Amino acid sequence: MQPFSFHLIATDGLARTGVMTTAHGVVHTPAFMPVGTQAAIKGVHHDDVRASGAEIMLGNTYHLMLRPSAERVAALGGLHTFMNWPHPILTDSGGFQVMSLSPLRKIAEDGVTFRSHIDGAMVELSPERAIDVQILLGSDIAMQLDECVKLPAERAEIERAMKLSLRWAERCKRAFEGAAADRALFGIVQGGDDLALRGESAGALIDIGFHGYAIGGLAVGEPQDVMLDVVAATAEALPADRPRYLMGVGTPDDLLQAVARGVDMFDCVLPTRNGRHGLAFTRFGPINIKNARHADDPRPLDSESRCPAARDFSRAYLHHLFRSGEALGGTLLSLVNLYYYQDLMAGARAAIANHRFAEYAATTREQWLAKDDLQ
Amino acid sequence: MQPFSFHLIATDGLARTGVMTTAHGVVHTPAFMPVGTQAAIKGVHHDDVRASGAEIMLGNTYHLMLRPSAERVAALGGLHTFMNWPHPILTDSGGFQVMSLSPLRKIAEDGVTFRSHIDGAMVELSPERAIDVQILLGSDIAMQLDECVKLPAERAEIERAMKLSLRWAERCKRAFEGAAADRALFGIVQGGDDLALRGESAGALIDIGFHGYAIGGLAVGEPQDVMLDVVAATAEALPADRPRYLMGVGTPDDLLQAVARGVDMFDCVLPTRNGRHGLAFTRFGPINIKNARHADDPRPLDSESRCPAARDFSRAYLHHLFRSGEALGGTLLSLVNLYYYQDLMAGARAAIANHRFAEYAATTREQWLAKDDLQ
Repeated sequence: MQPFSFHLIATDGLARTGVMTTAHGVVHTPAFMPVGTQAAIKGVHHDDVRASGAEIMLGNTYHLMLRPSAERVAALGGLHTFMNWPHPILTDSGGFQVMSLSPLRKIAEDGVTFRSHIDGAMVELSPERAIDVQILLGSDIAMQLDECVKLPAERAEIERAMKLSLRWAERCKRAFEGAAADRALFGIVQGGDDLALRGESAGALIDIGFHGYAIGGLAVGEPQDVMLDVVAATAEALPADRPRYLMGVGTPDDLLQAVARGVDMFDCVLPTRNGRHGLAFTRFGPINIKNARHADDPRPLDSESRCPAARDFSRAYLHHLFRSGEALGGTLLSLVNLYYYQDLMAGARAAIANHRFAEYAATTREQWLAKDDLQ
Repeated sequence: MQPFSFHLIATDGLARTGVMTTAHGVVHTPAFMPVGTQAAIKGVHHDDVRASGAEIMLGNTYHLMLRPSAERVAALGGLHTFMNWPHPILTDSGGFQVMSLSPLRKIAEDGVTFRSHIDGAMVELSPERAIDVQILLGSDIAMQLDECVKLPAERAEIERAMKLSLRWAERCKRAFEGAAADRALFGIVQGGDDLALRGESAGALIDIGFHGYAIGGLAVGEPQDVMLDVVAATAEALPADRPRYLMGVGTPDDLLQAVARGVDMFDCVLPTRNGRHGLAFTRFGPINIKNARHADDPRPLDSESRCPAARDFSRAYLHHLFRSGEALGGTLLSLVNLYYYQDLMAGARAAIANHRFAEYAATTREQWLAKDDLQ
């Protein structure tokens, strides 16, 4: 059994490219992880997700522990077997969804108690249970349980949640000690938009020691420049030899900006959620396919795309699918966007290896300015 | 340009296997046509529909003339180009949907006037316009405009609609005279459950002369044995050298029974509609995947199926997708069903060619009796 590992291949300024080795295969970084909330990437077949270039996907502990339950997934061979995705999987700890989805929750030192949004049952999620669930799911990369506060928030509130998350980090580390050596556990830096608290959080997590470090609690309402300042300060405080994962972010521009500041991993529902709502990400910027101007346009979204859906169908046809409420439209645009995100990351990896990431980011942004019609 | 043609390869009792040659490729009969109502087969990618073995699909004139409009589709290169389905397409005439979908309609000698279910506009559909629309769409096989009555109905009402449909058939034939020789026009036998009226309709249509003949006005509420009696009597009255198309039918058993009575072509929304609602057609009979007993079942739907979705995912996973409201579940079961229908027809073709269709139908039905759980 090869233990979990991360190796840098090249750096360019603060931007890094590397490779993670997990029990289910390698992941080249910077990497974008499509979100398979309920053991499925919404509206898209796994084979197509894989074909887009995705090497790792994310599963949501909160959803899976409620339905079909971690024990059931374990009995069915683990999440990889259950959903027939034999490639790497990262699971979050459930903490974020408890905050955003549960109609009722109580946070205490021991953990969080919440009401299931599915059947109303009261459920307990402690740091130990969060790790237990993720081990049952069989994730390649597990996340510590943390408490994430919405921004803006009072410093005292941010500090309280950050310190609680640190105590939970220690308990998660202990609970994870029985896990196989090819599995990884990441700590999560909290601290809101307060750089001193972020530094304190990062330092304490490094003392505990994790296979990788996530930057949590961002993209929760703050402006992009605030987010990027926190990312820059936090990434700088993290060890160079461990992967850095910016959770729940973001737009193509967010990704390039964060890569420039030393981030290695991302997850976001944006490609699929926007795809289902008719917004396509392309080299030329975002295209709102529901716009009436596309009704007679025989051009594909991008004739040079690697994505068949971007090449094989006219804008007029995609427009028609959305106007007609045909689910195929959302599927096709989700694919267009998943390919776009993967290609953006592949381009970043190549550019970093060739020491021209700044040029790559600038050229990519310039092309967006020829943006088709995000009005 | 090769004109539209139909050749019988073999017969076995009344069952027939043959090949239709159209402008966009050949179709082996008995053939099942998936329904692409609004220029898309609901929830399924064209490539997957093609991979299931479908050689021809059906488009709905009523829907397409309202949105995106026949003129727009024509300007975009016709339906094949518009939806990127370069294979044969049959379009219905719009008559059936006018009856079933329009909130208001008036049938007169000249045609039907109806209120669009989309924007409330009043729209006229005459026999000439129905042909014009289908020529604009570029269909390989066009259908005459007809009036379809719901069963049970009074004989006088059935006769009136049948005779009106005959007069419309003549006008459609004349309107179609300008169409290219590689395009086909089918007449539609009406007459409800009255065998004498069916015979009269068939005879009059043969006098007018069509490339093929459809049996319309069935599967509209009558029991299966009534339907099959009408199918048998009508098929017998139709010329052996022209394809016979039973419109809007049906279950796997309906298809086998109708093939046994000499039918060559079918269309139905059942595979995709049932798939979206969690019902899978398999060799072992129908399986309701939402049934709780599948929640822990690691077996695939059919490990020997040609359909990847039937082999690659456990019943437990498919069950989970439906319980979780993930659209991927409907997509996967639609595919399972489309493959099943295509394989059923491929099996029928091979059995007829080997003069063992009765045995094939009996064996297939026997396997269904080991049916998993349609309770």
